[in-house]
Amino acid sequence: MRWIRGGVTAAEGFIASGVSAGIKRGRKLDLALVSAQEPSAAAAVFTSNRVQAAPVLISKARVRSGLARAVLINSGCANCMTGAAGYRDAMRLSRVVAQPLGIPESQVLIASTGIIGRRLPVQRIERAIPRLVAQRSRAHHAEAAQAILTTDLHVKEAAVELVIGGHRCRLGGMIKGSGMIAPSMATMLSVVTTDVAIAPVLLRRLLRNAVGQTCNAISVDGDMSTNDTVFALASGCSGAIVRPGRLGERQFAHALTMLLQRLAELLVADGEGASRIMEVHVTGAKTSRQAQACARQVALSPLVKTMLAGADPNVGRVAAAAGASGAVFDPQRLEMFIGPRRVVAGGAALPLGKAVARRLLRQPKVVVRLELHAGSSEGRMLTCDLTEEYVRINARYST
Amino acid sequence: MRWIRGGVTAAEGFIASGVSAGIKRGRKLDLALVSAQEPSAAAAVFTSNRVQAAPVLISKARVRSGLARAVLINSGCANCMTGAAGYRDAMRLSRVVAQPLGIPESQVLIASTGIIGRRLPVQRIERAIPRLVAQRSRAHHAEAAQAILTTDLHVKEAAVELVIGGHRCRLGGMIKGSGMIAPSMATMLSVVTTDVAIAPVLLRRLLRNAVGQTCNAISVDGDMSTNDTVFALASGCSGAIVRPGRLGERQFAHALTMLLQRLAELLVADGEGASRIMEVHVTGAKTSRQAQACARQVALSPLVKTMLAGADPNVGRVAAAAGASGAVFDPQRLEMFIGPRRVVAGGAALPLGKAVARRLLRQPKVVVRLELHAGSSEGRMLTCDLTEEYVRINARYST
Repeated sequence: MRWIRGGVTAAEGFIASGVSAGIKRGRKLDLALVSAQEPSAAAAVFTSNRVQAAPVLISKARVRSGLARAVLINSGCANCMTGAAGYRDAMRLSRVVAQPLGIPESQVLIASTGIIGRRLPVQRIERAIPRLVAQRSRAHHAEAAQAILTTDLHVKEAAVELVIGGHRCRLGGMIKGSGMIAPSMATMLSVVTTDVAIAPVLLRRLLRNAVGQTCNAISVDGDMSTNDTVFALASGCSGAIVRPGRLGERQFAHALTMLLQRLAELLVADGEGASRIMEVHVTGAKTSRQAQACARQVALSPLVKTMLAGADPNVGRVAAAAGASGAVFDPQRLEMFIGPRRVVAGGAALPLGKAVARRLLRQPKVVVRLELHAGSSEGRMLTCDLTEEYVRINARYST
Repeated sequence: MRWIRGGVTAAEGFIASGVSAGIKRGRKLDLALVSAQEPSAAAAVFTSNRVQAAPVLISKARVRSGLARAVLINSGCANCMTGAAGYRDAMRLSRVVAQPLGIPESQVLIASTGIIGRRLPVQRIERAIPRLVAQRSRAHHAEAAQAILTTDLHVKEAAVELVIGGHRCRLGGMIKGSGMIAPSMATMLSVVTTDVAIAPVLLRRLLRNAVGQTCNAISVDGDMSTNDTVFALASGCSGAIVRPGRLGERQFAHALTMLLQRLAELLVADGEGASRIMEVHVTGAKTSRQAQACARQVALSPLVKTMLAGADPNVGRVAAAAGASGAVFDPQRLEMFIGPRRVVAGGAALPLGKAVARRLLRQPKVVVRLELHAGSSEGRMLTCDLTEEYVRINARYST
């Protein structure tokens, strides 16, 4: 497996485009289309929020067939809490895009992101769709990735190439999301495509596994979105076939996980106001559920995240969050490391020169490891710091 | 029941003092003593964090006897994650204070608050204890309340008077805590005194009930402390007797809850960087556990709290947090009110003029009510907004 340039069109059989439909202000790109030249195997993971946007409800129903030909995504408006009218808006747009593509509307998956509680400007979007369809090309992956952004600062794409059964094949994808990002739910908008041939049921299982270890193990602010979705489409164009239980399955699963991990890391690094990222790694937990809960509690703690922002070491905050997580451990045996340095042993904070401590926290990526000495399970979470900039961005989002 | 001036010495039989022992910088008051002239019934609620400071472990064991004569509290250093040495430090200080008071050290309760992972400056504290003991008086309640503060801006005290069985009696208290404040755990340092006569076992039950509805239903940042403790002492000096199952029990329980509610509100209003407070009131939930979980999730959401800071209404964030809480409800029936105004009906956001919306959020106390239409249970949480100031305070706490 090797990393290659490209994004959602890196795999054969996919083209994409991104245009400005006037949903966001200032002619920003805000409407994206990814389409498959052949009917493709499709799978998705959705937010587990009880409040779900209209496009989530529609895509959820459609992806059950295991087949899709296009993904239409808009930013600037989440089309959530918009009642029956919002549902009709989303249905209408998927109809409007299906027609020029010559595909049944049931094969159009849709997603929206942006402010909750406002109607989509349907007519403006409709008017933009012919341009969106006309501009599709393999070269326009970055425009699509740009068009799905909200408060994100950077386009986030990644692609890999590998050989399965003698066939060169690819996976590529794009992701958005920089606030309302939380673990244990689908946490962003992402589209991943591949040119392997794979049964929808296997694609679904591998996507769920990969999302669990990557997109669902990150947090910006612990808030769970009503809209977020990870789509995967497989065209089969490469000739590589992924069958359950074979070597190819392991290879593909690994590549898919690596790809989503890269996208998830890009997302956290681009978290609202983030200046650095932190990996919380819990080892020696009694169960993997407890390990994950502990990593999550530390990663979500505003006090830990502000500590990271200030690069002002405060190991007590990390231990307090671990102690509040429900993970079972003996505080007298707790060990903690920041990067290579042991900072807590036998439950007591070790003396640490201020200069050393600051240097440990001033890395672009800080790894904090907690050894609970209670078992052999581990868990990981990736998060970013909580800065004044995060508050500035979110205190004035809707206006 | 009526509110009166005063604090932890409002009830008869208690005196208090606060001095500077040099734990904090700049000669700030940092050592407090509350003492009872007679052996008093005692009860306490402690943090449920797995990582607990030495004074928590010691006070927990001592309060089981149901009897106490003094509470010694220092700020500036939490004496947590300090290993066996920290435990010995705390034992030694309680011995040193017991001696001039002429009481057994087992009747001294202790608490510490401040930075985690540093040793107490025991010798400095010892040197200050004679002054601390000498300065005790009924007039020095505010000095005691001042000495327990950390990043708090204001002294927080309250007192009430009521008549039970023909006897005029009082309850008074002080509280500290403005960061690392979270629900469902003991969340602060507080000492409440009363001059009723009450059995320790009944006092413990009523304190637990009252704390559950008040101190444990507030949040500043969702972080759980390793140290926090609510102590209650009853001297019996007023002649009023509180017996289980009698009218007096209900009167006293009500007064205790009101007192702790007032202290909890003062605490949230003084939350780190807080500019306004918000009550989240969930009605129509299936169970009261779900109601409380829902109120808690909304109150903890950084996106809701930054919205409050910016007074920029975004009902979607509130609904998204409710939907992520695990509470069971039909999103199509969700209703939401900000103050008197309905802002969501039938799951859809109602159009709201920007000026109106901002006015609703620009109150010093904003009440957000969520009607889930799923049952008849309700829950409440009190929180404050998340401001840039919170980040500034917490990015540079240890230095």
